[in-house]
Amino acid sequence: RRRGFPEVVLAEGKTSEQVVKIMESLAEYHSNILATRAEPETYELVKQIIPEVKYNKLGRVIILERRPLPRKGSVVVVCAGTSDLPVVEEACETALIMGNEVKKLRDVGVAGVHRLLDNLDILHQARVIIVVAGMDGALPSVVAGLVDKPVIAVPTSVGYGASFNGLAPLLTMLNSCAAGIGVVNIDNGFGAAYLANSINKMGI
Amino acid sequence: RRRGFPEVVLAEGKTSEQVVKIMESLAEYHSNILATRAEPETYELVKQIIPEVKYNKLGRVIILERRPLPRKGSVVVVCAGTSDLPVVEEACETALIMGNEVKKLRDVGVAGVHRLLDNLDILHQARVIIVVAGMDGALPSVVAGLVDKPVIAVPTSVGYGASFNGLAPLLTMLNSCAAGIGVVNIDNGFGAAYLANSINKMGI
Amino acid sequence: RRRGFPEVVLAEGKTSEQVVKIMESLAEYHSNILATRAEPETYELVKQIIPEVKYNKLGRVIILERRPLPRKGSVVVVCAGTSDLPVVEEACETALIMGNEVKKLRDVGVAGVHRLLDNLDILHQARVIIVVAGMDGALPSVVAGLVDKPVIAVPTSVGYGASFNGLAPLLTMLNSCAAGIGVVNIDNGFGAAYLANSINKMGI
Amino acid sequence: RRRGFPEVVLAEGKTSEQVVKIMESLAEYHSNILATRAEPETYELVKQIIPEVKYNKLGRVIILERRPLPRKGSVVVVCAGTSDLPVVEEACETALIMGNEVKKLRDVGVAGVHRLLDNLDILHQARVIIVVAGMDGALPSVVAGLVDKPVIAVPTSVGYGASFNGLAPLLTMLNSCAAGIGVVNIDNGFGAAYLANSINKMGI
Amino acid sequence: RRRGFPEVVLAEGKTSEQVVKIMESLAEYHSNILATRAEPETYELVKQIIPEVKYNKLGRVIILERRPLPRKGSVVVVCAGTSDLPVVEEACETALIMGNEVKKLRDVGVAGVHRLLDNLDILHQARVIIVVAGMDGALPSVVAGLVDKPVIAVPTSVGYGASFNGLAPLLTMLNSCAAGIGVVNIDNGFGAAYLANSINKMGI
Amino acid sequence: RRRGFPEVVLAEGKTSEQVVKIMESLAEYHSNILATRAEPETYELVKQIIPEVKYNKLGRVIILERRPLPRKGSVVVVCAGTSDLPVVEEACETALIMGNEVKKLRDVGVAGVHRLLDNLDILHQARVIIVVAGMDGALPSVVAGLVDKPVIAVPTSVGYGASFNGLAPLLTMLNSCAAGIGVVNIDNGFGAAYLANSINKMGI
Amino acid sequence: RRRGFPEVVLAEGKTSEQVVKIMESLAEYHSNILATRAEPETYELVKQIIPEVKYNKLGRVIILERRPLPRKGSVVVVCAGTSDLPVVEEACETALIMGNEVKKLRDVGVAGVHRLLDNLDILHQARVIIVVAGMDGALPSVVAGLVDKPVIAVPTSVGYGASFNGLAPLLTMLNSCAAGIGVVNIDNGFGAAYLANSINKMGI
Amino acid sequence: RRRGFPEVVLAEGKTSEQVVKIMESLAEYHSNILATRAEPETYELVKQIIPEVKYNKLGRVIILERRPLPRKGSVVVVCAGTSDLPVVEEACETALIMGNEVKKLRDVGVAGVHRLLDNLDILHQARVIIVVAGMDGALPSVVAGLVDKPVIAVPTSVGYGASFNGLAPLLTMLNSCAAGIGVVNIDNGFGAAYLANSINKMGI
Ligand SMILES: Nc1ncnc2c1ncn2[C@@H]1O[C@H](COP(=O)(O)O)[C@@H](O)[C@H]1O
Ligand SMILES: Nc1ncnc2c1ncn2[C@@H]1O[C@H](COP(=O)(O)O)[C@@H](O)[C@H]1O
Ligand SMILES: Nc1ncnc2c1ncn2[C@@H]1O[C@H](COP(=O)(O)O)[C@@H](O)[C@H]1O
Ligand SMILES: Nc1ncnc2c1ncn2[C@@H]1O[C@H](COP(=O)(O)O)[C@@H](O)[C@H]1O
Ligand SMILES: [Mg+2]
Ligand SMILES: [Mg+2]
Ligand SMILES: [Mg+2]
Ligand SMILES: [Mg+2]
Ligand SMILES: [Mg+2]
Ligand SMILES: [Mg+2]
Ligand SMILES: [Mg+2]
Ligand SMILES: [Mg+2]
Repeated sequence: RRRGFPEVVLAEGKTSEQVVKIMESLAEYHSNILATRAEPETYELVKQIIPEVKYNKLGRVIILERRPLPRKGSVVVVCAGTSDLPVVEEACETALIMGNEVKKLRDVGVAGVHRLLDNLDILHQARVIIVVAGMDGALPSVVAGLVDKPVIAVPTSVGYGASFNGLAPLLTMLNSCAAGIGVVNIDNGFGAAYLANSINKMGI
Repeated sequence: RRRGFPEVVLAEGKTSEQVVKIMESLAEYHSNILATRAEPETYELVKQIIPEVKYNKLGRVIILERRPLPRKGSVVVVCAGTSDLPVVEEACETALIMGNEVKKLRDVGVAGVHRLLDNLDILHQARVIIVVAGMDGALPSVVAGLVDKPVIAVPTSVGYGASFNGLAPLLTMLNSCAAGIGVVNIDNGFGAAYLANSINKMGI
Repeated sequence: RRRGFPEVVLAEGKTSEQVVKIMESLAEYHSNILATRAEPETYELVKQIIPEVKYNKLGRVIILERRPLPRKGSVVVVCAGTSDLPVVEEACETALIMGNEVKKLRDVGVAGVHRLLDNLDILHQARVIIVVAGMDGALPSVVAGLVDKPVIAVPTSVGYGASFNGLAPLLTMLNSCAAGIGVVNIDNGFGAAYLANSINKMGI
Repeated sequence: RRRGFPEVVLAEGKTSEQVVKIMESLAEYHSNILATRAEPETYELVKQIIPEVKYNKLGRVIILERRPLPRKGSVVVVCAGTSDLPVVEEACETALIMGNEVKKLRDVGVAGVHRLLDNLDILHQARVIIVVAGMDGALPSVVAGLVDKPVIAVPTSVGYGASFNGLAPLLTMLNSCAAGIGVVNIDNGFGAAYLANSINKMGI
Repeated sequence: RRRGFPEVVLAEGKTSEQVVKIMESLAEYHSNILATRAEPETYELVKQIIPEVKYNKLGRVIILERRPLPRKGSVVVVCAGTSDLPVVEEACETALIMGNEVKKLRDVGVAGVHRLLDNLDILHQARVIIVVAGMDGALPSVVAGLVDKPVIAVPTSVGYGASFNGLAPLLTMLNSCAAGIGVVNIDNGFGAAYLANSINKMGI
Repeated sequence: RRRGFPEVVLAEGKTSEQVVKIMESLAEYHSNILATRAEPETYELVKQIIPEVKYNKLGRVIILERRPLPRKGSVVVVCAGTSDLPVVEEACETALIMGNEVKKLRDVGVAGVHRLLDNLDILHQARVIIVVAGMDGALPSVVAGLVDKPVIAVPTSVGYGASFNGLAPLLTMLNSCAAGIGVVNIDNGFGAAYLANSINKMGI
Repeated sequence: RRRGFPEVVLAEGKTSEQVVKIMESLAEYHSNILATRAEPETYELVKQIIPEVKYNKLGRVIILERRPLPRKGSVVVVCAGTSDLPVVEEACETALIMGNEVKKLRDVGVAGVHRLLDNLDILHQARVIIVVAGMDGALPSVVAGLVDKPVIAVPTSVGYGASFNGLAPLLTMLNSCAAGIGVVNIDNGFGAAYLANSINKMGI
Repeated sequence: RRRGFPEVVLAEGKTSEQVVKIMESLAEYHSNILATRAEPETYELVKQIIPEVKYNKLGRVIILERRPLPRKGSVVVVCAGTSDLPVVEEACETALIMGNEVKKLRDVGVAGVHRLLDNLDILHQARVIIVVAGMDGALPSVVAGLVDKPVIAVPTSVGYGASFNGLAPLLTMLNSCAAGIGVVNIDNGFGAAYLANSINKMGI
């Protein structure tokens, strides 16, 4: 009988062949597997060996979910714009396969704070909030100021110039005026969801 | 007859003696003079030569204003917390002596966005807005998103650790999601007010 | 009846398909739309759906201008060399579609300061000046020293080596010896023009 | 009747006088107050006004705890050496006044991994783990690899040379090979405890 | 008679033609030659001129070993994951051709410290240990804490975001809590092996 | 008979006692000695042993010049403001004791380019030009654009915030749009003068 | 009659079409033109319009030299290895077309200091020395210590990892223990030669 | 019976009281103890409790050596100038108490390479060489090029401006053109000696 808790493979920095081989061998003992940062070509190769896999193209995630875990609690993933969506999708797929109920809240950037205020109820229903933001990285501060939940902040490499590939929002988030924020690596949707899962499952 | 438009001396990096000498010689031809970044000791020395000078201790500014310019238009200076006040004061004194009406709006940080919303009318009455912020430097983005005025953003060196002496809010502001923001050097309240003055006087 | 004030889409970091979809839906309610950082391929796709669009190849801007706003006041865009032109064009197209009269002044770098002095009258006729400069980023200091107008400085990523993709001119501009300069992000011609527009329209 | 949930004042960047004034006015409506980064002199001044305050000298924290909250759940604070203790103390005092049971585990650096393994039971009993580490910042990775709890990592500015005032352990922690780690600002014991509290209270 | 001690060529930054020419002329006087950072195409070209050469594809190393040196002492090369293998291979090939007995120990990252403890005997049999690690770069600290041998640490550029192409593990290693570690450049498997060779041969 | 060509001691990073001892022993064989970065206390101590020494307080230079070299050619040292004067003085004293004719040109910053143009004749009479500048560091570009002489640029650590202790003008100067500029270390007036001397003496 | 002193075009950052157009129009009034950083394709296009042009492939320089200037004085260009040759070639072509006698000295790196000592006579015959070096950038220090000539140091972006694209040798050169060194931008062979020319021509 | 192998305490970042307490308790079980980075005041306090301690003022090291280990093999510590001596002393004291024969070689900087060549025999007699260097950090490259021994390079924070507190020589050393160099943290004389000891003892 295979283990239900998902294994996660980081495809980036591996050849497609290496990913296929790793997933194949993991699939013997694990019902649920995720491969993050996977290119479409890698997905096509994996699919020939494990036909049940699915692919989230935007999030670049290959998903094998043969025995879905029951989805509990509630993780809300918040972002401002279209360009942060790949990281949002990586976070959502990770949280889902780990057995979390997930809601997305997008187009709620700090430059239009009213949109965020209009969705306060969604934030209040969350147990943990993941906030994904590039450029000025200001969104986690505003969200953490509005609600009293653990907030996980993910800076993204979206933007240009003085964003320095995500350094700007990373520093912003580490210096947040609002307390209660834990920061993960630039573009690390997976890491944010992993931490959110371990928080969300507390007391459940 | 002395010129009304103020001269500004940067006291930092000069000895007290040098500042006294410069102010003394400027005072012959200029009615109004400001010395920024001036220590109390420098003020005491200057006062012995030019008894009319005043001192803004928090803002570290020496003020000689013998023929005040009429105060026109409206510049609003916004900040979040107590630690940004020195920069706020430098900006206000500069704007005042240059002949601008000045309003301060403090304690309106992004971690409590409702306080900012409660003061929207003050922002709407401004012709130019100076936003002073350290740490996450997120305030200019929210302000520029709320009102359609020129916003001048001043990062401050307040904070510690990954603020890297103001680098964090500087990068945040340069990467703002909201358009219409011009950024000046870290802690440069003077520069912000100088630019605000040149904008505020347009069409007046 | 569609709104006249232009919408702006940042094409960079979006797929051509995403840009087409966004422009199509915006075009229902907005007469004037700009897409910045858009590749020729994206333009070709957009053109099939919205045949009126034009393309500024150098500035990589797609322009839909069905109800041109009246062009008021005067924004002057200054630069030194050929390599800064893409940023200059982005700034000009943005300023134009927002209803500003725009003049360009090129080939006036600090290494040949006489060319700049020969064009002082153009600078004096401006209401706002945008200065685009890469490498040493020294031009805004000289311009702001010559005329008493609001200056918006745009560092560019042009250059190599110790320019560090625009970090060098960015720092130069933030440390300008001349007061009255607001700085925007590296290569951010759009942001400079947006701020210039909001200043230029004051008192008009 | 005063509110039980503690208010926290950051004394750094404020004068002793400002801190006294702020604590005095907060003390009217709040039973429990903490002032972090407070010098002994500030404590002496505050004590003259509010005699019940205590002082944690190592952690530089002034504590007013008139109606202690019941201490629930369990937060474990882990560190390697003597030099990280100030940050550990700041974290512990914050967690205590917010109503958390707190255990300290020290002298368990990665250069002697057996000491850590000898204390695995303490880690397993935690609901949340705060790991404080300077220099190589490697401890959170090892801890998060050993137990399946939310880990909050605090880099410290302890060390010299290529530690660059805490930049080295900050980067280490953001790049941890072990998932489930949220990072806070360099030396930010307060922020770590605040986040730990909000996690620890889940489901209690 | 050709010299036995190997020559090493860094192919990176040279054209294939340059590498071929250099290897050809070296091959006259040297029995053993290594070309590191060599692309498959370069290998194919070299092979046409010097048919005995072999290629380690993962390590990108071309090997000409006509008179193998006797393999002495013992160098152990340790790493955590699949993505560090190219650097591991570069180190191993270099150490081998220089006449060292080499053992590899992989999949022993700090996030699963028990795997490392299970292999303590291999570490104890080493005369010198090379530890290759990317991301958090924490492995050398743990290894140097476990055994009393010279440790050579090689940071890798593997990872993303705040790894900043290997800067993060480089700083980690320079700040190691465990003494007895010498650090080489990012991805410099060759340099690590060269130093390991000169240490391993002492007293042999 | 003592050697005429001056010896130079860098006092910074040495104790006063070390400086005295070094100067004393050098004074036996050298007629002319300079100690740069020397505090007044060091000067007082040296004076007790070698009564002929003089002290340039602003430039922090101790001067022993027993057999002045004939002053040849012409080195012009240019700067913008009062705060750069210490570096200017260090450069001038070094150039003088090495036997160069030296002229100073101050108050000629880029923010007032006309002052510089008014002094073109002095620039044209120079054989080598040293330009000292902090903050935006733009002055060498303008000077090198105006005249066709070797220009040596010295960035200074004057300024604050995003000057990052002289990094900003250093990068500016390395990226100068005008060719013909050699850059020395931040605040290195000595190094600039040493290079200027070796250029000025060519063909004399 | 065309001007003999060469014009220089920086092809990098321009399209081939732009380079062709600029060279064509310059060629009317200038006998000698150089285009640096030019790709082979650009050369082919230029050749169709101006058939006399030559191309230095390694140095990526297009050369039009219709009225060669007489070659005077002596500039020596020194480097350590094969990978620095492109920058060496750019410097040599620039110095040649400007009318300097040029000698190259290669394979004289600091890791084999005897090769350098064997060539001391060449260094002593120089009037100016350009030293091109990547990686540790140590060569200019050794050269400037050996001979008493103006040294121009050019850091190169050759190398990997902690070379950070030339930052490492740039910093090394700015901090040289040997006086008399002026530094130019990373890879800026052109700038070094331009400065060398203006020094070499002194007193000739 | 106390253990002979020395314990080492890092006094920096600890109060004098903490150091005294730690040394006192270590002294019960260890014959030999070193406290590095210790101020004179700390030494005075320790001396009152453990009268046998000695103090190396320049190296800031407190030494308790009750049962000196026999001094074996040979470690040579090389440096260029006076300002690097504190780090040299820290390294020497550490190597001595650990039972190594130690030789110092000073005043052998790269700017006068002949002094180094005159001392080649000392380098050839070494088993391990520690090279301490600030500013350009070029010395390890030259030394490692001259002799075929393990070289440990220690960058120092000596210097100013673009040395960035030792970053410049650190990068230089990591990028050395000569192979066989292991680098330790800036100013880390202790770490260099610890590694040198473990290498020197091989095969003895
Ligand atoms: N997108 C990601 N970013 C960072 N870490 C990841 C990511 N995806 C997976 N991981 C981590 O990488 C581990 C697998 O790495 P590997 O064994 O190299 O495939 C997982 O257990 C996760 O801890
Ligand atoms: N606080 C300040 N920050 C930046 N620049 C300033 C400041 N105060 C004055 N300045 C500028 O410095 C100039 C005076 O410099 P100085 O002649 O050196 O006193 C003024 O004209 C202003 O342009
Ligand atoms: N070239 C540009 N650089 C920076 N920001 C831009 C640029 N073009 C558009 N924007 C901003 O990005 C917003 C649109 O972003 P989006 O909704 O992602 O298309 C616009 O409203 C502008 O504020
Ligand atoms: N390789 C180079 N690196 C830096 N600057 C260069 C280079 N080649 C030419 N230049 C400079 O760039 C100027 C030409 O720039 P442009 O007018 O943009 O072609 C020349 O006059 C030189 O000052
Ligand atoms: Mg909150
Ligand atoms: Mg707005
Ligand atoms: Mg102006
Ligand atoms: Mg875990
Ligand atoms: Mg060990
Ligand atoms: Mg010139
Ligand atoms: Mg010399
Ligand atoms: Mg060697």
